Amino acid sequence: MRISVDALGGDNAPDEIVAGALAAARRLSGDEIILVGDEEVIRPRLIDAPANVSVREARGVVGMGEDPAASLRARPASSVAVAARMVREGETEAFFSAGSTGASVAAALLLVGRLKGCRRPAIATMLPFDAPALLLDVGATVSCRPQDLLNFAILGGVFARKYLDISDPRVGLINVGEEPGKGDDLAKEAHRLLAGSDYVRFAGNVEGREISRGVADVLVTDGFTGNVVLKTAEGVAREILGMVRGAVTATAATKLAGAVLRPRLLSLRDRVDPENYGGSFLLGVRGSVVIGHGNSRARGVENALIGLARSGSGLAEDSERELAAAQQQVKGDAV
Amino acid sequence: MRISVDALGGDNAPDEIVAGALAAARRLSGDEIILVGDEEVIRPRLIDAPANVSVREARGVVGMGEDPAASLRARPASSVAVAARMVREGETEAFFSAGSTGASVAAALLLVGRLKGCRRPAIATMLPFDAPALLLDVGATVSCRPQDLLNFAILGGVFARKYLDISDPRVGLINVGEEPGKGDDLAKEAHRLLAGSDYVRFAGNVEGREISRGVADVLVTDGFTGNVVLKTAEGVAREILGMVRGAVTATAATKLAGAVLRPRLLSLRDRVDPENYGGSFLLGVRGSVVIGHGNSRARGVENALIGLARSGSGLAEDSERELAAAQQQVKGDAV
Repeated sequence: MRISVDALGGDNAPDEIVAGALAAARRLSGDEIILVGDEEVIRPRLIDAPANVSVREARGVVGMGEDPAASLRARPASSVAVAARMVREGETEAFFSAGSTGASVAAALLLVGRLKGCRRPAIATMLPFDAPALLLDVGATVSCRPQDLLNFAILGGVFARKYLDISDPRVGLINVGEEPGKGDDLAKEAHRLLAGSDYVRFAGNVEGREISRGVADVLVTDGFTGNVVLKTAEGVAREILGMVRGAVTATAATKLAGAVLRPRLLSLRDRVDPENYGGSFLLGVRGSVVIGHGNSRARGVENALIGLARSGSGLAEDSERELAAAQQQVKGDAV
Repeated sequence: MRISVDALGGDNAPDEIVAGALAAARRLSGDEIILVGDEEVIRPRLIDAPANVSVREARGVVGMGEDPAASLRARPASSVAVAARMVREGETEAFFSAGSTGASVAAALLLVGRLKGCRRPAIATMLPFDAPALLLDVGATVSCRPQDLLNFAILGGVFARKYLDISDPRVGLINVGEEPGKGDDLAKEAHRLLAGSDYVRFAGNVEGREISRGVADVLVTDGFTGNVVLKTAEGVAREILGMVRGAVTATAATKLAGAVLRPRLLSLRDRVDPENYGGSFLLGVRGSVVIGHGNSRARGVENALIGLARSGSGLAEDSERELAAAQQQVKGDAV
């Protein structure tokens, strides 16, 4: 796979982005990584770089606080715009950026383009628990229609097969109760569409307290709820781990005991670290797009690129085909 | 305060409910607790009961799976119906039930009645972190209008002053970003109403990862989002604590180390235990209504009743006055 990497986006760009990309390239000898950004900034960091790494010139970044669409129009040579345009032109199959999420989404929509049959895209993120699940949408589309949630189920299902190697992923609908009649109008109607689709292995409604329990491989919801769920889960995990750290470091005796437990507690912390996956996927566009965390370090960038390369190409094609089939069935049922 | 307690509702009724009520009554000598349920079931459990505990006859319960409104109509003598009717008749100022949440909400709406100016009620729950916050709505009203969220802010603010002893509570709006323009239509318009109200000390938008960080005393959102947030927070906390337990009990050496840390880890677990507050408050009705957890044990029931009694009476009156004033201002601004 050929991947364009926005070398200038993110709090720790370019150092951590370039370091992560180089580490990934060393492990991905059959794939190609193209770093996008000011050549004079990036070149000096490529001493001893493997042969499958190259540079593409770009000028400037779209910052966190800026209006994404307006900035992309004003700065067509910015790193995220160039990285996205390479996907559209077929030079690469995927792009990665740890810069402004809004800029990545706008670049994907405006420069790469949506899949046919996909009104709105979704950002999909792995919830990092012992029983991981793919949650979407976590913020690309805050106001959804029921059909959007069916589309997200299809997109998430295709992604889970390719990227997570789950042959027949179970899809759950985030809701306030398990019974089919629960929820607001969106959830009720989405439940009906999901339950009726031959293209979704529907596991029913999933309540907030079940999201970490492995009851589904893919969890769909609107971008407002998904964003709040994801950030709540991250915030609470961090809060509890902080309390555990406080308990361990309280006294000399607990510190001694903590030293024995330290390797296991660190591994626990690593298991729930969002950097394990290194980023989120934007689904519903004509290519693979990975949005890194703004504070991604080399390890996160490396993990994201490795995962991306392993998932192989064809995500857009497979998704478009499944969307069409599923929508055909909904229309057929309605006749 | 006089409190009617549904002695038959909940997984552990009547034993744990009665035990919790008796424990609370012993600490609340100036208050009165009336246990509502079959006399022949409850009387034998009242040996050595303090003088401020009495019994009111009721027959039958509304079960978890039943349609609440229909069951209440079919069984007007059920324990939750009798407990609610006592509030309406002025015999008690508050009722507590650990039975079906739907039945408690329906009993409060149909038998106690809504406050003037309150289109829809909200269930308010304390998020049990080191920096606790009151979250509402967690499920009474899954589809909200912007004005409902302003009402929730008023109701939560009055409650925080009386029940949590916070003289000027800060109110945050759950949203997908900090900036005012973020969110779906509901969140955007609610932000405008909250920012413009003289009756709300508005702290702005609060993202999911901030809910445990003490940035606001009261967090408002619609009942769909609030329910998912609450259950996600509870689920993740339980998940992480389970992983910590796994680390501590892994080997003989870690168990030994764990023994040193045990008191602190147990206290940590207790700090985030939902039973600390023993239940949720239904706000927006003409009395104080506490909804216990279905699996509440004596400690939770006791805590709920103590908290209720300490908050004092007048919640409904104060809330109604503030709602009227806040709505008056919105109308004035619109002219």
